[in-house]
Formats: sequence, structure tokens, C-alpha cells
Amino acid sequence: MIYLDNSATTNQKPKEVLENVTWAMNNSANPSRSGHKAALAMSAKIFEAREVLCKIINFNAPNRIVFTKNGTESLNLAIFGTARKGGHVITTENEHNSTLRPLFNLKDRGIIELTILPCLNGNININDLKNAIQENTYLVAINHVSNVTGGVNPIEKIGDFLKDKNILFLVDGAQSIGHIDVDFTNYHIDLLAAPCHKGLYSPMGVGFLAIAPNIEISPILCGGTGSFSEDLAQPKDIPDGLEAGTIPAVSILGALGGATYVKNHYSSIKKTFSQFRYMLYNSHLPKSVKVYSVPNNCGIFTFAIDGISSAEIANILDEKYQICTRSGIMCAPLIHKRLNTQKGGLVRASFSSFNTLQECKIFLQAITEIVNSL
Amino acid sequence: MIYLDNSATTNQKPKEVLENVTWAMNNSANPSRSGHKAALAMSAKIFEAREVLCKIINFNAPNRIVFTKNGTESLNLAIFGTARKGGHVITTENEHNSTLRPLFNLKDRGIIELTILPCLNGNININDLKNAIQENTYLVAINHVSNVTGGVNPIEKIGDFLKDKNILFLVDGAQSIGHIDVDFTNYHIDLLAAPCHKGLYSPMGVGFLAIAPNIEISPILCGGTGSFSEDLAQPKDIPDGLEAGTIPAVSILGALGGATYVKNHYSSIKKTFSQFRYMLYNSHLPKSVKVYSVPNNCGIFTFAIDGISSAEIANILDEKYQICTRSGIMCAPLIHKRLNTQKGGLVRASFSSFNTLQECKIFLQAITEIVNSL
Repeated sequence: MIYLDNSATTNQKPKEVLENVTWAMNNSANPSRSGHKAALAMSAKIFEAREVLCKIINFNAPNRIVFTKNGTESLNLAIFGTARKGGHVITTENEHNSTLRPLFNLKDRGIIELTILPCLNGNININDLKNAIQENTYLVAINHVSNVTGGVNPIEKIGDFLKDKNILFLVDGAQSIGHIDVDFTNYHIDLLAAPCHKGLYSPMGVGFLAIAPNIEISPILCGGTGSFSEDLAQPKDIPDGLEAGTIPAVSILGALGGATYVKNHYSSIKKTFSQFRYMLYNSHLPKSVKVYSVPNNCGIFTFAIDGISSAEIANILDEKYQICTRSGIMCAPLIHKRLNTQKGGLVRASFSSFNTLQECKIFLQAITEIVNSL
Repeated sequence: MIYLDNSATTNQKPKEVLENVTWAMNNSANPSRSGHKAALAMSAKIFEAREVLCKIINFNAPNRIVFTKNGTESLNLAIFGTARKGGHVITTENEHNSTLRPLFNLKDRGIIELTILPCLNGNININDLKNAIQENTYLVAINHVSNVTGGVNPIEKIGDFLKDKNILFLVDGAQSIGHIDVDFTNYHIDLLAAPCHKGLYSPMGVGFLAIAPNIEISPILCGGTGSFSEDLAQPKDIPDGLEAGTIPAVSILGALGGATYVKNHYSSIKKTFSQFRYMLYNSHLPKSVKVYSVPNNCGIFTFAIDGISSAEIANILDEKYQICTRSGIMCAPLIHKRLNTQKGGLVRASFSSFNTLQECKIFLQAITEIVNSL
């Protein structure tokens, strides 16, 4: 099997992840609850995970890394937790439903106004953003890398523009973290949401939200925090107040392993992705293959073939070539509307650092063969 | 080490859990998203998990088992997802903060009225419940077993009383599921919330909410569902519409293993817990040991000792005897107020079916030795 669906979740995991998950399964104890040695050992590893994630994103406040179950919960926490009645939010066509649906929920309930910036060549034009700012704009929510086109938004410039404006800057790092630089501090990001099971290779079941100092977020879940337990109101401390209930400790330990792997092998990971980029975007595919993604270092390659549906292509790749890809609109409806591919969708092949150039070659050859067989 | 903190999370896992987690780590693919064989294999296992949970709780609608990250999210989904402005909710002193804090959040925002029933001998008096019903009562939220006293609420009678009243019946099964019968259908439960990492032995990181047919719940998280992806509003279908984002598949597969273990060994599990009950509640402990829990089949034993704080007892058990227990108020403030133990809290020893009677004996001997050393 050649697994090229890594933008959905990574298949192959570094040994650091497998070892940490095994350790967690054999040393299970609820962190931040009890004071016995087993619980304290788990708590120490959880804190280590916050620290390693901080290193990955260049952030110096490990206790402001809030663990969630996935990138979607991280985005919901950021969006619902900062919602202001009568406020205005700016987002983009590139966004995944994990951003669009919470924002449309707020819009449809009459809580916010919403502006959606076009992404004509994979990303926004920063002048469009500048022109969209209103007096009541309090949040700009933008993904770093499109999960459909691989287009990279100019996060650094946006952060620089927003930094003195009293507007929160929320970045969805789902497709960028672990692949390209996400510099929380220098990009002036206020809220960074990401899953850990994609570019950081954790098990499915964990994501995080990094929250800049002085930013207050209302919880979306209330419950036990192991702190201020006599208080019937949700505590306001971070991370506890935003991590109600037992945290997904096993997956978090997997994230610790995955983030450690990424930190220690970042140069070679980047090199691998640039090699995929070169091979994918310089291949001489038949003319009937239309590539919709832009060259990117996140391993994303999206395409269609004249005369055959995307679902059928993915099916042939799976059945005949044992190549796992994804077809459809990948939970990102607006960018497909822009590309005029909302009906049949596209096929996405997405790579991880564990894929090989040989696998990439086989994939490209398979596309050619499919075209030739039509 | 003798691990007696199983009400927080279980330490030892059945081989079915370890095998399933290992399988999931080696066959990672995002269920309900892509159509390739790896994703479909994962989807099939996820559905199997819904089916086994249904068998455990005697429910016949696997697609109405919604997976969450923990029991707290399950309770939040049930409580926030059914909230009615101007409505009235009845709950009890036994509840954990995972129920109390969402309810007080609604109360403090002026959305609901709240009645809290006393639990004088470990559980409510059903007449108190009958007397508390108002015209605007729409929800009764009651835990099955107290995580502090082990008191068992008369869930079957409550369900029978409520079944024709157009009042939702929400049960928190955190401390009962896997230990004693939780019969969703015959107890006329509308909403059953539980974590999987306690009596069902899964990894931390997964819980579920079982939702009776015809009950509508608003989502608390919006995002990608792999369904109706072109729609910017959250879909209303269950489970997809209530499971936004990548589900915690690895922990769910662990839950599949754990629930299978419980299903196949239920008689011997019940026998083990009745043996713990007998040994714990018929032991001749020194007079200065005050037991606060009531005899129960869920492995819960809570106590204090005159002249020494609960924190200190737990510390000696940990340091001198390598016995893991929990001290404090265990996120359940109101029952401690009732017991007048809210200041120092109590010590809780909580057993799983993997503990042995020999471990139980050593624990009781350790308590006696601590008393004698004072």
C-alpha cells in the first residue's frame, strides 16, 4: 500500500510516537488529578509535550498550550471563545469547514458580521484584507496552508499588519505545522490552532490551541479541572479552565513523540518535502491531467482528469494500484466554488516525510496509466 | 505499585485494548473521510465500537452513539445541546463538576432555573424528585453512581417515573458503566453520558453520548463531518453532525477492545466487585477510620482518619506503601458540603476488575498501620 492521504491523517508514525503511546498505555494514570507517583509521572510528560510544541512554534508559554481533541475543537474554542456580539470577522475562501462552520454559526445567529476574502491564486491578497477592516473587526481567521490547493497565505505579513490594531489574529496551522515554519512569536499570532495527528504524527485524538499572553478565552466545555474544585463556575486559569475533563493523555504523549521527531529531523523533513514538490510539479503528466494545487512544501497535490470523475480516479488508484488518496471537496466548499470544482470535487494526494520518492514516482506513473487507459 | 485510583482512570488494560491500540497505530487512516481501503477498515472498526457499546447498555441504535473526547464533553453536549431558555432542570448533590459546571453556567447566564436534590444517604429520595417537578422542567440530570460515596441513584425508578412526562432523562454513567447494569432501553434513559477509560478500560481520550431516537441535540462543536461538506451550516445528522473533526479513532478502538472485554467477562467482573465490596465494608478497621462511602459494587471506598489530613494519608499510602489513591474533593463539591468534608476532603481508593483481593488486603492493612503509627 502507498498511503498518500496524509493531509487527512498520517499513516506511518515515527518510533518516538509508538514508544510513547506504548508507555502511556502501560503507565496509565490521570494527570493533574491525583498526587501519587503514577499521576505525577504522567503530568510531567504532559508538560513536556506542551514544552516541545512551544519549541516547534517558537512560543515561550507552555501553560498557554491548551490540549483539545482535534484541530476542529481548537478552532471552535478560538472562534466561539472570543465571539463578540456586533463584531466583525474576516476569513478566507481557503478555509476548511472547521473554521467556516463555527463562523457561519455565529453569523446565522446574528452575532457577527463576516467578510470572506477571495483566494485567486492559492492565497489572499493582503490589500483585500486591509480594505476589509472595519471599526468593529475583532478577529481575522486565516489558514496558513489550504488543504485543497496547498496555497500558502502570507501569515507573516498579515501578522505584521495586524499587530498594533487590537484585532485578534487566529491561524489554522492544520496543513503547515511540521512542514514549514510556523513562528508564533515573530508572526505576531494571537491564536494558533492545529491538530497533532497530521504534520506532527500523533495518534488521532489530539490537537492544541496556543494562546498569546493577555488574551482571554471563554470555555466551550465546563467541568472538572482538578483545580478550584469547590467553585461551581468554570475556573479562568489556562490551561486548566479550558481543558475540562480528562485530557487525551495517550494521544498527547504520542504528540510529544511526534513533535520531538519533527524538532530533531526538521531539516531533513523540509528537504524531503522540497523533493516531493520538485518531482510532483515538474513531472510531465499528460495534458488531460489538470493540476489545481500550487507548488508547495506541504506535500499537497490536487488534480482532476478530463473524462473521468475524481471519485473514479481515487477508486482506481486504490483498487488497481493500492494507492490511498482522497477525492471530493475535502470539507472546504468555498475554494472549490472558486475553482469551479464543487460538483465532482478533486483528487488529493498528500505526502508525509515517511513517503519515498519511489512512491511518488509510482503515483505519477499510475496517473499517466489511468489517462492512457481512458 | 498497587493502583487504587481507577475511578479517575484505569491503569491496567485488558489485552483486547492493547491489541486494538497497536492495530490502530499501525493502520492509521481517517475514518468517515476517504474512501480507500485503509480508511474503510478504520471506519468498520469504529462502527463495531458503536455496536459493542450498544450491547453493553442495551440500546439498538449504534449510529446514535456519539463519540466525544471524555465524559465531560458528553455531558456538556447533552446539557448545552438541549438547553431551553426559561426552562427548569433538576439535578443532585452527588453530581461531578462535569454536570454541575455546565448547569451553573446556564443558570448564571439566566437561561435556566436549577433545583439540586439532596443526597442524604448516598442517593436521592425519589419523592424529592417528584416534588421538584415544575411546569417548565425539561431535563433531569442525575449520576448513576457517586464518584465520592459510591451511592447508587434509583435510575430505574426515576426513568419509570419520567417516561411519560416529556422531560429528558440524562444519566451520567461515569462510575457505573462496566461495573453494574446500565440498561438504556429498560430504564427509559434519553441521554447516557460516559467516559470509556474508566469501567470500559479504554485509553484516556474518548467518551460517548447515547441519544434516544427522536431527541434533537444542538452541536457544541461545528466543523468538518465528511458529510454535506458543501453546506456551511452544521449538518443535523447523527452521529456525524455531533462529531465534528477527526474523531479520536485510536482511543475508540481501545474502547472497542475494552467494551468487548467487559461484555465477555461481565459475570466475573461483577463477582470481583462484590468480593471487594465484602472485604472493604466488612473489614474491622480501627475506630478512628471513618468510612464515608456506602457499600457499592463499583469498587469505591472513601474514608478519613481522625487526626491526620486526607492529603497526608494519600501521601503515606503512596510513599511508604506504593499504593495510589486520591485525596481531596474529587471535583464533586456539593456532596462534600453535605458530608461536611469540603475542607480537607477525603481519601478515595477505587478498584478495577484487575485488582486482586490480596491488594485489597494490603490496602486495608496499610490503613490500620497508619492509624497505629499516629
